[in-house]
Amino acid sequence: MTYDPDNIFAKILREEIPSNRVYEDEETLAFMDIMPRADGHLLVIPKTPCRNVLDATPAQLSAVIATVQKLSRAVKEAFDADGVTIQQFNEAAGGQEVFHLHFHVLPRHEGVSVRAPGKMGDFDLIAEHADKIRAVLS
Amino acid sequence: MTYDPDNIFAKILREEIPSNRVYEDEETLAFMDIMPRADGHLLVIPKTPCRNVLDATPAQLSAVIATVQKLSRAVKEAFDADGVTIQQFNEAAGGQEVFHLHFHVLPRHEGVSVRAPGKMGDFDLIAEHADKIRAVLS
Repeated sequence: MTYDPDNIFAKILREEIPSNRVYEDEETLAFMDIMPRADGHLLVIPKTPCRNVLDATPAQLSAVIATVQKLSRAVKEAFDADGVTIQQFNEAAGGQEVFHLHFHVLPRHEGVSVRAPGKMGDFDLIAEHADKIRAVLS
Repeated sequence: MTYDPDNIFAKILREEIPSNRVYEDEETLAFMDIMPRADGHLLVIPKTPCRNVLDATPAQLSAVIATVQKLSRAVKEAFDADGVTIQQFNEAAGGQEVFHLHFHVLPRHEGVSVRAPGKMGDFDLIAEHADKIRAVLS
């Protein structure tokens, strides 16, 4: 399987399509999921190309998991969450829809299930949630 | 939240209770989940204590994600899988049941959903699946 440089996360990285960025460093980017399964649901990706965990380099994985940790702590604080669920899908059978490595980070609250997948979120609300996360990180 | 040294994965690490180990190195251990949600479902943990992603050190995270990658590739080959799903739960609200950092690695096949959680697997079958994974890694 080869990397498709026109996948939507590659376009987000090149700023060809908009996204709500909450954090970035030299190697990674975190931005809001537009189909949030929980308030504050975000994605962490490497800035360099790879499809998923199966073809990533050790450097890409180390950088991404460090940012996943940083953002897990941030969303827990920003949303006063009780826990965090992390999901990472590889290939279509594994649940992957965009073929650029990404980790899902979902703040969780006691007794609140995640919402069904595939439903577009309210963009104003997502922007508010992004502000909360950026405020914690700043 | 402090680490409980008597959680079941700590006991597995100390070999006080049995497990079906498929891989280990200096820093990490991989063993079969006894409630497999897919054939070949396994867990990757650090050998040193931490509750989850929220309190892990960068070294623990880097080591564990490298082993997650190694085992993701191994289960894909061992089960001729089409994809791999990775899950990682933090605190009870995030889905965590054992409070020692662990990543779930599930081989996936097109059109096959994961099974419901919480159901004990057949131990002979799990042992067969472990053999398949060890064979690929050896």
